[in-house]
Amino acid sequence: MEQRVSLITLGVNDVDRAQAFYEALGWRVDGGVDDENDHVVFFQMAGLIVALWDRTKLEQDSGVEDSGGWGGVTLACNVQSPEEVDAVLDEARAAGASIPRPGAATFWGGYSGVFIDPDGHPWEVAHNPGWTVHDDGRTTLG
Amino acid sequence: MEQRVSLITLGVNDVDRAQAFYEALGWRVDGGVDDENDHVVFFQMAGLIVALWDRTKLEQDSGVEDSGGWGGVTLACNVQSPEEVDAVLDEARAAGASIPRPGAATFWGGYSGVFIDPDGHPWEVAHNPGWTVHDDGRTTLG
Repeated sequence: MEQRVSLITLGVNDVDRAQAFYEALGWRVDGGVDDENDHVVFFQMAGLIVALWDRTKLEQDSGVEDSGGWGGVTLACNVQSPEEVDAVLDEARAAGASIPRPGAATFWGGYSGVFIDPDGHPWEVAHNPGWTVHDDGRTTLG
Repeated sequence: MEQRVSLITLGVNDVDRAQAFYEALGWRVDGGVDDENDHVVFFQMAGLIVALWDRTKLEQDSGVEDSGGWGGVTLACNVQSPEEVDAVLDEARAAGASIPRPGAATFWGGYSGVFIDPDGHPWEVAHNPGWTVHDDGRTTLG
């Protein structure tokens, strides 16, 4: 298996509402399907795709049982400064996210906070001075 | 907020065991921390990083309550052919994964199956003729 993630699918209760939340943060949809059979939206990232899809369909498609809450996966968006962490958390709050952990210095030498999207998915927003966020959006160690 | 995912952290019960599973699939660790305070491993992907970290620490760090099972996030690794889907699923089974959905043609015109890692995280292994998997590992729409 190649060392690769091609797609992250976030299961949501209402694709339109979830799309509106991420658009309010500044994202723009790059593709998707919306017909009588299915509704999914795709966002192209640097190197991979993020999808928003009905959580029950994703549960069935993934061959798992949904425990109904958080299940051990957290995403992060790294940014260029502590000030940008705070700005993104403010944007997320304004768009309807909850903020369980405000921006603050971290034990690992950076600065981060967490927002939780309207479907319960947490995002750490982080400035890690030991990692590089490239102009094209890629994030690399070192 | 930039349209970016920098990091996917998978919460696991035993970092060493989880690392061994992904190494058995062919992945190689690119960094991490292992001391009396913490244990995390990082895999560099095309454009982002995947981390394996203690699930209870991730729960606390993310400001969420762990419902103990799957929580609405599924990852996918896209490959170049249906045959490669089946080969990766065989590798995963041999490494200790369960296979809730064997490789088969999908409703969206591709071919995929799912394995579930030893910590309960599902991965779709997919061949999608409408998307491009580049030589450097990036996956793009179209």
